[in-house]
Amino acid sequence: MPHIALNPDEYGIRSLFRFRPGTALPLNGLVEVLLCGPSTLTRGERELIAAYVSSLNQCTYCYSSHSAYAAAQLPGGMAQVQQVCAHAAGAEVSDKMKALLEIASAVQESGLKVTSEHVAAAREAGATDIEIHDSVLIAAAFCMYNRYVDGLGTIASDDPELYAARAERIVEDGYLKFLADSQVSNP
Amino acid sequence: MPHIALNPDEYGIRSLFRFRPGTALPLNGLVEVLLCGPSTLTRGERELIAAYVSSLNQCTYCYSSHSAYAAAQLPGGMAQVQQVCAHAAGAEVSDKMKALLEIASAVQESGLKVTSEHVAAAREAGATDIEIHDSVLIAAAFCMYNRYVDGLGTIASDDPELYAARAERIVEDGYLKFLADSQVSNP
Repeated sequence: MPHIALNPDEYGIRSLFRFRPGTALPLNGLVEVLLCGPSTLTRGERELIAAYVSSLNQCTYCYSSHSAYAAAQLPGGMAQVQQVCAHAAGAEVSDKMKALLEIASAVQESGLKVTSEHVAAAREAGATDIEIHDSVLIAAAFCMYNRYVDGLGTIASDDPELYAARAERIVEDGYLKFLADSQVSNP
Repeated sequence: MPHIALNPDEYGIRSLFRFRPGTALPLNGLVEVLLCGPSTLTRGERELIAAYVSSLNQCTYCYSSHSAYAAAQLPGGMAQVQQVCAHAAGAEVSDKMKALLEIASAVQESGLKVTSEHVAAAREAGATDIEIHDSVLIAAAFCMYNRYVDGLGTIASDDPELYAARAERIVEDGYLKFLADSQVSNP
């Protein structure tokens, strides 16, 4: 049961967006740029980092959401996402992605855990400064979203269809349009 | 030394804002609403939560910044901030603030650490739903900012004057105007 009075028809962070629209806008603006904006990392790769960190933080709602969004945009689908979350170092992803996931895992513990060795390994595997920057910020941002969603005790649906349907919308429209449509259609 | 190529004339998160202006805007929009927007918590109280979480995460740059911003807006100044960070439960703040700081401390560990007892204690001390919401989100957001700043190895100044001067600007203008002025004046 949520710790504060939220719309019972909505799940996870979406119930919080309705409760506090003023913070919903920058929170969605951030994932819009990081996960959907122009990048040399694919949208699937960026959602994979989000799903991986949410899995490390054991945030059911965010993991269910972003694993579905990643699966919809990765060649290996949900099996690839689950493989990464079970054992990233042995998963079937590029060496660059392995190194960026290793950085994300360090960030999940603490920013102070990221070492120059982590960064050198990513660079040797071909990662650019902006890819390293964005991987750190995606991991850090999901340390925020995960704490926000669970710290207020929001409810996660256990229906995979719901997350799969939402993935179609996110892939098509991105986060800001989906937010605007949701707030209007279900006031 | 920073892990990526940043402007050497800037410190901490400000060097990252220059590196990636697209994410700087929503990151500043979030603190503008949370720390400067209309609220029944004073701006000093909200900056105190930010400084407290940054202290728990041992983020020198964010703690130096937000302790200065809190000190500039709290009746007890820097002594009060330091007292809270050393031992929040025994500090000279209201019972409501003690309960909200307790929630922030749980969030710093994990969203899953916030219990209904934490929330009931805050409510008994007079906290409203929106105050509880904002305290959770401020704490969660600083778990992001702290990881972002330290995960990319940014440099913190050790000059208290720099943070005190910046506090005057933040109190006067807020975060978004300070961002806009900085990006223009030092391109």
